[in-house]
Amino acid sequence: MPVQKYSFNHQSVNYYFDAAFVDLKKIVQKQPAIIITDENVFAAHHKRFKSWKTIVLKAGEAYKVQATVDSIISQLIELNADRDTLLIGVGGGVVTDITGYVASIFLRGISFGFVPTTVLAMVDASIGGKNGIDVGMYKNMVGTIKQPHFLLFDTALLKTLPDQQWRNGFAEIIKHAAIKDEVMSKELKENSLKDYQKNKEAFKQLIKRNALLKTKVVQGDEFEKGERKLLNFGHTLGHALENQYNLMHGEAVSIGMAFAANLSQKMLGFKQAPKLITLIQKYGLPTEADYNKKKVVEMLLADKKREGDSINFILLEKIGKAVIKKIPLEQLYKQL
Amino acid sequence: MPVQKYSFNHQSVNYYFDAAFVDLKKIVQKQPAIIITDENVFAAHHKRFKSWKTIVLKAGEAYKVQATVDSIISQLIELNADRDTLLIGVGGGVVTDITGYVASIFLRGISFGFVPTTVLAMVDASIGGKNGIDVGMYKNMVGTIKQPHFLLFDTALLKTLPDQQWRNGFAEIIKHAAIKDEVMSKELKENSLKDYQKNKEAFKQLIKRNALLKTKVVQGDEFEKGERKLLNFGHTLGHALENQYNLMHGEAVSIGMAFAANLSQKMLGFKQAPKLITLIQKYGLPTEADYNKKKVVEMLLADKKREGDSINFILLEKIGKAVIKKIPLEQLYKQL
Repeated sequence: MPVQKYSFNHQSVNYYFDAAFVDLKKIVQKQPAIIITDENVFAAHHKRFKSWKTIVLKAGEAYKVQATVDSIISQLIELNADRDTLLIGVGGGVVTDITGYVASIFLRGISFGFVPTTVLAMVDASIGGKNGIDVGMYKNMVGTIKQPHFLLFDTALLKTLPDQQWRNGFAEIIKHAAIKDEVMSKELKENSLKDYQKNKEAFKQLIKRNALLKTKVVQGDEFEKGERKLLNFGHTLGHALENQYNLMHGEAVSIGMAFAANLSQKMLGFKQAPKLITLIQKYGLPTEADYNKKKVVEMLLADKKREGDSINFILLEKIGKAVIKKIPLEQLYKQL
Repeated sequence: MPVQKYSFNHQSVNYYFDAAFVDLKKIVQKQPAIIITDENVFAAHHKRFKSWKTIVLKAGEAYKVQATVDSIISQLIELNADRDTLLIGVGGGVVTDITGYVASIFLRGISFGFVPTTVLAMVDASIGGKNGIDVGMYKNMVGTIKQPHFLLFDTALLKTLPDQQWRNGFAEIIKHAAIKDEVMSKELKENSLKDYQKNKEAFKQLIKRNALLKTKVVQGDEFEKGERKLLNFGHTLGHALENQYNLMHGEAVSIGMAFAANLSQKMLGFKQAPKLITLIQKYGLPTEADYNKKKVVEMLLADKKREGDSINFILLEKIGKAVIKKIPLEQLYKQL
């Protein structure tokens, strides 16, 4: 099975592109392993889990909370998990985030790997080592940065994925294009979601291109001192809206990207805002929303990217070139 | 203010020996800081906290749990803590453990430092970056290994420390002597707790000697692949007893050391078991206890040091020289 190894500060990660779920056995071999997944993934692929010890979570962002962590830890204790145990998160971003987090704190840290089962998890959530849980309305308020030991990509797992979830993932793909990859933005413009769903080879290439784009950014700045912040494009407003209005992550980020594109136009003379907004809409994603400005600012106050009275906001100079701008919250409020 | 810098894998730590609490201001300077302490320390030293934002916890190991972490995180959000915020744990091992843990997960990690206020925290708990919380009966089941930015030692803070807590700390000092420092074991034999309480200079030297002994061990093996395991001498049985019988940490460890000394005699021909047991008793610490063997083995099954059916147990060849022995749980059961 072909493997590509990418090194991060404290850990190197094996990427198995174009692999199959069944290859997990080869990767894990004799190490005692426990899979963590959610009820939807388990129901859709229950045969695949047969020979594995599995912890099944309730599905959805609402369960990316401490109570779920507590429950997993109790189950790990019951299963006699020890420092040799490998946790494998099989699922979307919620599952990979919570698996990575539990693995980084249980017994002060055990090994883990991911099998992403959504487009979003394949191109974004499973990559880069950020994990965590939400606290109340606040996204990812608690977590660590710790790389998995491996990532296994099996696009066959997407067969049962609802279209809404495909769109959800394409929000992050468009984000990657917007901040780093003008060529990909053109490819996205020339294709549609249906095209990628039909053309498996092109889709696999797209997944790989995005996974490696994010990998490269994270390798250069794992602990988000600079360049990695660019990946937050669309996420500042996005996070403020997501849990408050019960949006899907990709929807919230899309609204955030459209807002940031318009703000880039005002502040930096960015000329391609309409083009980017059209692209977002082409993939069935929203670019506007009615929201309570005051509540949004309250959320921004608790944003991890806030520094005193300002917030590090990601803007675009052009498609493919993003920059970090420190914007006073007061000024941002006027633009909302 | 004199400072000694010691480097660990991902972080260097400033040690301020022979410092005063009031020096905190010089260390922290302009960084926004929040102190975490407990109600006992706060009551004993309330004037010292006047100019600081302070989160006050209930005192005791019973509060080294997730509910306390949740409460601290809510308070940090209310206090608008951000990535620039520095947490300062002022207290004993429970406070330093929980402060280090919260700092390592809040916003995926913020800076922190410690001002230990007990003998145990000065010589052991505040040093080496291990943090964590208990889960049910199980000690430190969840946590991370992350070094603080600084350690400030002010022995004046011990003035109000009850004798029981002094003894508690001397258990770890005796442990250090047993595994690594025969010369110190002789010094301990020639002195008494009262001597150290009277002779401030000798006591400061003892604190420093122990802090640096542990520092050196951790520097050589931060993530406990080998040498650092030696610091667990007395702790395997100790942890199994501590929360179950509501013992102080030092008491539980003392019983564990006496057990390990006798086991060392049987398994390795260790000849100084009576000598070590006498030393433990000299410092007012227990060396025996009635306990439920079955319950102890249940606890050992969940011990972080377990590997399959065996457990890595620390034994002594002689005072000052410890070794790691993998012992089947079954064999251990017979010795209990």
